[in-house]
Amino acid sequence: MSEQGSFVEELTDKSDDYSRWYTEVILKAELADYAPVRGCMVIRPYGYALWENMQRLLDARFKATGHVNAYFPLLIPESFLAKEAEHVAGFAPEVAWVTQGGSEPLEERLAIRPTSEAIIGQMYSKWIHSWRDLPVLINQWCNVLRWEKVTRLFLRTTEFLWQEGHTVHRTEEEAQQETMTILQVYRSFVEEDLAIPVVYGQKTEAEKFKGAERTYSIEAMMGDGKALQAGTSHMLGQHFARVFDITFQDMDGERKYAWQTSWGVSTRLIGAIIMVHGDDSGLIMPPKVAPIQVIVVPIWRKEQEKEQVAEFVEKVKARIGTAVRLQVDWDDEHTPGWKFNEWELRGVPIRMEIGPRDVKNGQVVLVRRDTRAKETVPFDDVESRVQELLDQIQHDMLERARDFMRQRTRRVDSFEEFKSVLEREKGFLLAHWCGDPDCEARVKEETGATIRCIPLEGDEEEGSCIWCGKPTRGRRVVFGRAY
Amino acid sequence: MSEQGSFVEELTDKSDDYSRWYTEVILKAELADYAPVRGCMVIRPYGYALWENMQRLLDARFKATGHVNAYFPLLIPESFLAKEAEHVAGFAPEVAWVTQGGSEPLEERLAIRPTSEAIIGQMYSKWIHSWRDLPVLINQWCNVLRWEKVTRLFLRTTEFLWQEGHTVHRTEEEAQQETMTILQVYRSFVEEDLAIPVVYGQKTEAEKFKGAERTYSIEAMMGDGKALQAGTSHMLGQHFARVFDITFQDMDGERKYAWQTSWGVSTRLIGAIIMVHGDDSGLIMPPKVAPIQVIVVPIWRKEQEKEQVAEFVEKVKARIGTAVRLQVDWDDEHTPGWKFNEWELRGVPIRMEIGPRDVKNGQVVLVRRDTRAKETVPFDDVESRVQELLDQIQHDMLERARDFMRQRTRRVDSFEEFKSVLEREKGFLLAHWCGDPDCEARVKEETGATIRCIPLEGDEEEGSCIWCGKPTRGRRVVFGRAY
Repeated sequence: MSEQGSFVEELTDKSDDYSRWYTEVILKAELADYAPVRGCMVIRPYGYALWENMQRLLDARFKATGHVNAYFPLLIPESFLAKEAEHVAGFAPEVAWVTQGGSEPLEERLAIRPTSEAIIGQMYSKWIHSWRDLPVLINQWCNVLRWEKVTRLFLRTTEFLWQEGHTVHRTEEEAQQETMTILQVYRSFVEEDLAIPVVYGQKTEAEKFKGAERTYSIEAMMGDGKALQAGTSHMLGQHFARVFDITFQDMDGERKYAWQTSWGVSTRLIGAIIMVHGDDSGLIMPPKVAPIQVIVVPIWRKEQEKEQVAEFVEKVKARIGTAVRLQVDWDDEHTPGWKFNEWELRGVPIRMEIGPRDVKNGQVVLVRRDTRAKETVPFDDVESRVQELLDQIQHDMLERARDFMRQRTRRVDSFEEFKSVLEREKGFLLAHWCGDPDCEARVKEETGATIRCIPLEGDEEEGSCIWCGKPTRGRRVVFGRAY
Repeated sequence: MSEQGSFVEELTDKSDDYSRWYTEVILKAELADYAPVRGCMVIRPYGYALWENMQRLLDARFKATGHVNAYFPLLIPESFLAKEAEHVAGFAPEVAWVTQGGSEPLEERLAIRPTSEAIIGQMYSKWIHSWRDLPVLINQWCNVLRWEKVTRLFLRTTEFLWQEGHTVHRTEEEAQQETMTILQVYRSFVEEDLAIPVVYGQKTEAEKFKGAERTYSIEAMMGDGKALQAGTSHMLGQHFARVFDITFQDMDGERKYAWQTSWGVSTRLIGAIIMVHGDDSGLIMPPKVAPIQVIVVPIWRKEQEKEQVAEFVEKVKARIGTAVRLQVDWDDEHTPGWKFNEWELRGVPIRMEIGPRDVKNGQVVLVRRDTRAKETVPFDDVESRVQELLDQIQHDMLERARDFMRQRTRRVDSFEEFKSVLEREKGFLLAHWCGDPDCEARVKEETGATIRCIPLEGDEEEGSCIWCGKPTRGRRVVFGRAY
């Protein structure tokens, strides 16, 4: 708990009611607000600035791996959606339908895209003719809609923003390689830019994307030990190519079906940032994506002091330059203490205090949001020290989250142990599974835990299925209760 | 006409059929394609890269003038849209309606946003309490939908991408000033970044945004002399504040209605770039927004030559660095001549040819897309010369378009003259108008020309209304046939 004022006391403690804490942080920090439309939210400027930074960094990673952006229509004719049987069965129950355009009822219902495989597949079948047209490496940043029954800000909303990549390849190997490349792009983005450690691996049949051959995901652990699927990369095989007739003339002259992938991450990642890093005082923003990296709180009593402080603040700003996202809080309605709390709530990584004494001594006071460590820095060092601190905070946030995930990841060898560990404290459970969907379903039924992924790395070993006890040989799978 | 090959001959001449030329350029240059959904298009990677560059530059201008981005829901309950009478009357006929979510029919229809004043107004009434909360300067980049009867790629499509700014102010003066600030932001963006000259001014009552107090616009002249409304900035007055109850406690303690503005430009501007700058060989991209600024076409016959050229190309790339968007066309299926045509069609501002002789002489050949002027540049000068040329091309494109607009802008003093000038050649007509909506309507009926805007600058003079002949005193208004 922070010492100052009544402001922070209004925020529910994480440990008292995690879910309430989560919602309060979002509303009070003005990341988002409830919209007056069922299950929808408004992303407010502070939350959107975070999303913009995330987009910029992830988009650069896509482009560095050869991808380009495009834009496909919002509306998908029902007949297109219906072409891939598993896909339509998976998504139709959550589609919002347009049935009227202007004053005319439509002959065919149009789905607001829940995901765009169908409409994009249709275009690809038109554009792709020869092996020379491949690979196609297209990504789209857009809004999608899923008519969810239970919604929660950022984690599950009727409308959300995301990116969806849709690629086409000549061979199965290339498509598989692309699926893996993107899984690694997601992993490094989430770990390096958002300071969120993940486990990654393949989804089981029950948990895979409807219409995919195989789904891979990165899974993060939230502050309450629950899992969050943070990104998915699907090897689509030839499922959509067959129903949308995406064929090409190969080098050998033969006409063949193409191989596809699709992959996405969404504004849900903002929910992950809040839950992984936040504390009882509010948000803690990873420096790389923080809308404001340094908040300067000038301190003065008399008007003359204010002028001196203002002059010094300008010098500091000029010194630090534009490489750091810095803002000065000149608001004169609130006390410095109130402002400290406000900017802690909003999670700004570094607070810089500048008062008359600092001006006199030619120094500033820096306070880290994550550890609250305070230090005095001479004017000449301010630029380099701020940069160092931002790097250090980014690094420490990832390490802290990694430690937490490690502590809450447990190897269990019997179903009894599985249940008792899960009852004591939520987290990841590493257990053996025989591969039978029935065992998976029963564990879920009994405990609410699902297989988050089957890891792609790690030692293989002898073991026995956590449910049926059948001997197995392979890697332990990751179980957890998920958002 | 270009000399090379059969490729370009496929493109219709501008002068033969402007409209067909326009569509062919878009499809052949792969800027966009028709989507299999009524009136919708797909923005292909080359077109989307252009849009991304435009977004980046315009967004920087918004941020430099104090604006921030946010995101509001796609769906608007019918009852919200209905609150402002003129607004709903203007937009309801072109709304796409969602009537079903998953398997349940909805109690209230939801409009896919045709524009977001209504949903944003609702949120603003919740967020704004005091004069201290003002101004609110929010912009949103998003998709909108209008159920248009007649559509045309980029110019008028059912779904399009745009930005919509929505600001709230304490006083009428501030709102008016914001409206004007944005009009100037649009003007300088379109002129300086897109090399498209505009006239700007106020819209008449008949042409204003439905729900606004006053609308201002920038108007550009296309290559066929027709006008294109390229951006609008609306002073909304208190219309929406009254119906959505957006009130604030002012400094004097009184509760007052807020003053609002809204403003937008869209992917329609891509249509303007094509029509203002394009020629019989295809697109000409303004360097500042061109997806590719320099296309390198390596020329070789023997494999050994190819290696030498490749080595030199790498040196040139390293020399030019990342400040210039440069791409090398190593495709080995087509001849250099074919590639010249291809990249002319796509409008890349500078072509760089590098063949064995250039390698030997340590030089490159640069060809301007706009003038086709060719020059040989020594390796040491390549970086500075490319930068100079890009600046020069950007400058010359604006000047050429300005000359064209000047030539096609004529002062007319009688309706006879008005008609005969318009029949001879489309363009802007500067004429006096008495201010009567009836005269405006009759001119439109007789000639298809509308008042594009009432200019905000220029000499006032005595004159007589082009339709009724009544004496007037003031500025001439701008008439034209519009897209």
